[in-house]
Amino acid sequence: MSQSVDSAVDAVRAYIDQHRAAFLDDLAAWLRIPSVSAQPEHAADVHRSAEWLAAKLQETGFPVAEVWPTPGAPAVYAEWPCDDPGAPTVLVYGHHDVQPAARADGWDSEPFEPVVRGNRLYARGAADDKGQVFFHLLGVRAHLATTGRTTPAVHLKLLIEGEEESGSPHFRALVEQHAGRLAADAVIVSDTGMWSEDTPTVCTGMRGLAECEIRLYGPDQDIHSGSFGGAVPNPATAVGRLVAALHDENGRVAIPGFYDGVIDLTDRERELFAELPFDERQWLATAKSHATAGEAGYTTLERVWARPTAEVNGIGGGYQGAGSKTIIPSSAMVKLSFRLVAGQDPAHIEKIVGDWVRTRVPAGIRCEVGFSSATRPCLTPLDHPALQSVVRAMGRAFGKPVRFTREGGSGPAADLQDVLGAPVLFLGISVPSDGWHAPNEKVELDLLLKGVETSAHLWRDLAEHWRHAP
Amino acid sequence: MSQSVDSAVDAVRAYIDQHRAAFLDDLAAWLRIPSVSAQPEHAADVHRSAEWLAAKLQETGFPVAEVWPTPGAPAVYAEWPCDDPGAPTVLVYGHHDVQPAARADGWDSEPFEPVVRGNRLYARGAADDKGQVFFHLLGVRAHLATTGRTTPAVHLKLLIEGEEESGSPHFRALVEQHAGRLAADAVIVSDTGMWSEDTPTVCTGMRGLAECEIRLYGPDQDIHSGSFGGAVPNPATAVGRLVAALHDENGRVAIPGFYDGVIDLTDRERELFAELPFDERQWLATAKSHATAGEAGYTTLERVWARPTAEVNGIGGGYQGAGSKTIIPSSAMVKLSFRLVAGQDPAHIEKIVGDWVRTRVPAGIRCEVGFSSATRPCLTPLDHPALQSVVRAMGRAFGKPVRFTREGGSGPAADLQDVLGAPVLFLGISVPSDGWHAPNEKVELDLLLKGVETSAHLWRDLAEHWRHAP
Repeated sequence: MSQSVDSAVDAVRAYIDQHRAAFLDDLAAWLRIPSVSAQPEHAADVHRSAEWLAAKLQETGFPVAEVWPTPGAPAVYAEWPCDDPGAPTVLVYGHHDVQPAARADGWDSEPFEPVVRGNRLYARGAADDKGQVFFHLLGVRAHLATTGRTTPAVHLKLLIEGEEESGSPHFRALVEQHAGRLAADAVIVSDTGMWSEDTPTVCTGMRGLAECEIRLYGPDQDIHSGSFGGAVPNPATAVGRLVAALHDENGRVAIPGFYDGVIDLTDRERELFAELPFDERQWLATAKSHATAGEAGYTTLERVWARPTAEVNGIGGGYQGAGSKTIIPSSAMVKLSFRLVAGQDPAHIEKIVGDWVRTRVPAGIRCEVGFSSATRPCLTPLDHPALQSVVRAMGRAFGKPVRFTREGGSGPAADLQDVLGAPVLFLGISVPSDGWHAPNEKVELDLLLKGVETSAHLWRDLAEHWRHAP
Repeated sequence: MSQSVDSAVDAVRAYIDQHRAAFLDDLAAWLRIPSVSAQPEHAADVHRSAEWLAAKLQETGFPVAEVWPTPGAPAVYAEWPCDDPGAPTVLVYGHHDVQPAARADGWDSEPFEPVVRGNRLYARGAADDKGQVFFHLLGVRAHLATTGRTTPAVHLKLLIEGEEESGSPHFRALVEQHAGRLAADAVIVSDTGMWSEDTPTVCTGMRGLAECEIRLYGPDQDIHSGSFGGAVPNPATAVGRLVAALHDENGRVAIPGFYDGVIDLTDRERELFAELPFDERQWLATAKSHATAGEAGYTTLERVWARPTAEVNGIGGGYQGAGSKTIIPSSAMVKLSFRLVAGQDPAHIEKIVGDWVRTRVPAGIRCEVGFSSATRPCLTPLDHPALQSVVRAMGRAFGKPVRFTREGGSGPAADLQDVLGAPVLFLGISVPSDGWHAPNEKVELDLLLKGVETSAHLWRDLAEHWRHAP
């Protein structure tokens, strides 16, 4: 067994070496499409990204590759059945849309003009998430070439959505609409990261997300702060007071009912977290931040992986240009996002946040509270057999023991779990320094190719160790 | 005496009627120059405005009319000596720069394309302050024509600055530089308003102003709110907490030392305020606001005229565009203005605000606090004889008793008082609905012409009732 595994590892690596250049050229072509789902002016680009991917999946060999429209941005669906009807069915999830990016935000090169510097590929979407979707394409080819198979060892399905960076507003409906075709025994989510280059890990959970925009309206127009200042409510002051009231003095979210249902960390989970080689200085450098802060009584890893949060993503109101303008502004706004953990219900969060805002807004200020589509939190069962396949495949690719983490970010994985009734596993090779949502997003080329290797090993391991219960 | 006053009133009105059309054409030409001192792109327009005014003053008959450069925007100085060397010297103050304005802010017409609708002239600067500077030009011509004089009855000087809407950063130095030529027995400030069309008033004081911009820096770049949220300080949250901490639960400014030296209102002043025909609903309509709010224990008039304030003029940070962006922003900022009352020292305010910000900013957040030039508060001595001349001249123009107010806004009048050692009087005909600093700024044409009349009567009254102490 050990020898056959070793030779499979070598064969996969040899195959990848041969196809590496074409693989990176293809990925670069995809990254050049600015598929920013949050910006209406990029709607056509998101469509173009979907068409490009569907064509590439057909070229890869998937007998089915379709663009699935939604009321928003389209998803891509593909399937490649196994010649053994009894093989398990695995659905890979990722997304082809990306965060907004502009050179002026601090990029060293154009965000949609991929460039390799050193051993890194820089582009918006390189890690989040096009790179991590794309490694499966070469992975399945390597799997076939090195096993001599003509079909994958599992029934392989891919669902690559186009609205993940906009809160996946139509994703659940899409999954419900196509639940029959999407049916799977397990879902592999490739939209997360691992601990570090040196410590490969499998993620066992993601936080959920609820997002809202609060607009406060005071005077019907900007008014003179000398003539009226001190005697009427100022919406920019009111928005500041809302922000300040989000947390108590212990860093806990102070919105009544916010912690309802939260599943607390177990002692065992806290021990597993504590065993990871965590270096706070290094973490801060990755976070580009200059201090830790947060909920009292929890470590930094616990805060980002397993505790819910309220963060201000944007705030604005009044005069923000050069110089000064002595006004009381007519309106102000704040964009908030709430990260949620297992046991929290986004619908409940939306209700209590709306209620909280409305009770706190002072007389003379009108408020509007709008929510984007929410994302549910999720946790992978630690004892699921498919999880062991992911751990083994990753271990072969990296040649190291694989440990466990969680992910502070959010994805629509919980919708897949809910609708399809399948467990969700996480397979990602991104590292914290990749700069998700930030300027100079990149992917480490070595890790990207380890992702290809992992994908190449995974399908056979799943078929060998885990039969679909008939 | 009564007959001669009546005939003087008629003669002044007849003269103004004859010259009204040309006067309004000239004012419109001036208003077309977008002399926005706060916006660097309008620097040339502010220069053009000064040149235009100086030329117009020469055309009016002023033997001296000069553009005075400053390190920022230029002022205009003019003088017209009296043929009686023993006559008092009066310096008129106003400003030729205006607030920023753009059609998109909510204007019904172009802000720099004056238009008469009904009996109102709409344009940025119509009331604040070009209209109120300009009425003196026709006023002095009417004074000469109706008295048969070839020079004004007082030594008349004008100083019209170009940086009032930017906090007059170079004004005090300019006044100090030219203190000899500016020497006067009294200063007439025409940059305020009156109670209402029906209740002519003279203003006896203005609030001072200190302005600051606070910039808070957190992560070195925007970072992912999922990966890092809940574990590092967020500068947008920190800016909200600063704003919330500005006031206590009684609406008092909570910055330690803020009320140091404040001269409280006397019972007599509170009675005078209370006697004015104040209608809170009407005041709110003028303020375009939907509730009163402010420091507990004070009326609305007391709050805006005689109490110091802290207002947010602008706040910003993070993503403010369409949709959402799940980031912790790298920075946030807030622009604050503090209105000050007699007894408060702007330099002290700047020091305590800077100290307060620095002590409140949390670990991991870096702050920058910048101040614009400050404006001192001022109060006119109620028993000054020149004040009675202003009241009489205004009474003749309006045919009504004249009452007393204060002004919530700020102007550099206190610098003139400090440097020149002369009392400051306020003569303004603007009304609260004129929309200073707001879209659709206008001036009531009837009141503008009452301003001309008042100016025409004032110079003879001053000369007759108040001789310069030799």
